[in-house]
Amino acid sequence: MSLPANKTSLLESFFDQRSYAKKELLLTEGQRCFEKFFIVKGCVQLSYLRQDGTEQTLDFALENWWISDFMAFAHGGISQFSIRAVERTEVLAISAAHQHALLEQVPELHAYFHLMFQRAYAASQMRLRYLYEFSKEELYLHFLRHFPAFTQRVPQYLLASFLGFTPVYLSELRKKFVS
Amino acid sequence: MSLPANKTSLLESFFDQRSYAKKELLLTEGQRCFEKFFIVKGCVQLSYLRQDGTEQTLDFALENWWISDFMAFAHGGISQFSIRAVERTEVLAISAAHQHALLEQVPELHAYFHLMFQRAYAASQMRLRYLYEFSKEELYLHFLRHFPAFTQRVPQYLLASFLGFTPVYLSELRKKFVS
Repeated sequence: MSLPANKTSLLESFFDQRSYAKKELLLTEGQRCFEKFFIVKGCVQLSYLRQDGTEQTLDFALENWWISDFMAFAHGGISQFSIRAVERTEVLAISAAHQHALLEQVPELHAYFHLMFQRAYAASQMRLRYLYEFSKEELYLHFLRHFPAFTQRVPQYLLASFLGFTPVYLSELRKKFVS
Repeated sequence: MSLPANKTSLLESFFDQRSYAKKELLLTEGQRCFEKFFIVKGCVQLSYLRQDGTEQTLDFALENWWISDFMAFAHGGISQFSIRAVERTEVLAISAAHQHALLEQVPELHAYFHLMFQRAYAASQMRLRYLYEFSKEELYLHFLRHFPAFTQRVPQYLLASFLGFTPVYLSELRKKFVS
């Protein structure tokens, strides 16, 4: 879902345009989260640190998606997640304070965010079903079928982390199904 | 989050007020979903049918929450979930067509739905983290600590299904932690 085009110049004054190098952090777990990010170009991963110190990837965002720790963003709280650039990434960042001011000036944007979050929440309902319903192999095949571009773009070790696999197991599945 | 009070009479003309008996279905998996539900009083469960014919509970909604299959609701599609009353439940139901007309008349409601879906999506981000991070025992203790009222209200076999436990395992955990 893209931003309303006729509001572009007004929007620009509220957003901070930024570039992140591959593997650079947009948001760090344990620090205050006061921004959300619109991905203009690139790809980011949402993750948290497991107790053993490794990163568990929970989500990705590609072009035209929003991403943040939305619980922390809503309350200016401490982030439970990190967000890291998977490749070189350009974003529009907006702080909660700027968003508040923007929505006062352009209340029509609530309609855009209503649909955007409804879509995100709907996707999370489906994802929950797949997590309960599918075996690891089925999860991988579902992912291959529904997000082929994604599977090519995201490094295999991140895809494995996202699917809850070891890299070795993912590599075995790839040999079995991608020939 | 409650509905804006000053719009109550207008809202009533768009909503269908309904009562459901315990265990009655509000929405049936496999049928077209054209409504979303605001829980006025009571409790409902969102579930899908596993291949073995048993119900897997994925979510609950209590008073002042909205629930639907939001992917199906957004597109008038076939529901991937059933919604069933856990106890006697009163709802306000609104069809997608009525919501469209209502939002034309009261566009301020987009702000309400924006916040409501942001909150729901934020909760689903946290839930995903807990599903990856916690052991079954930790999941149960987290649930007990954060949703004590809920744990008393929802029948144990549904709570077990929601947490992905067998009823026997949940009963063992209860003996261990609730004394």
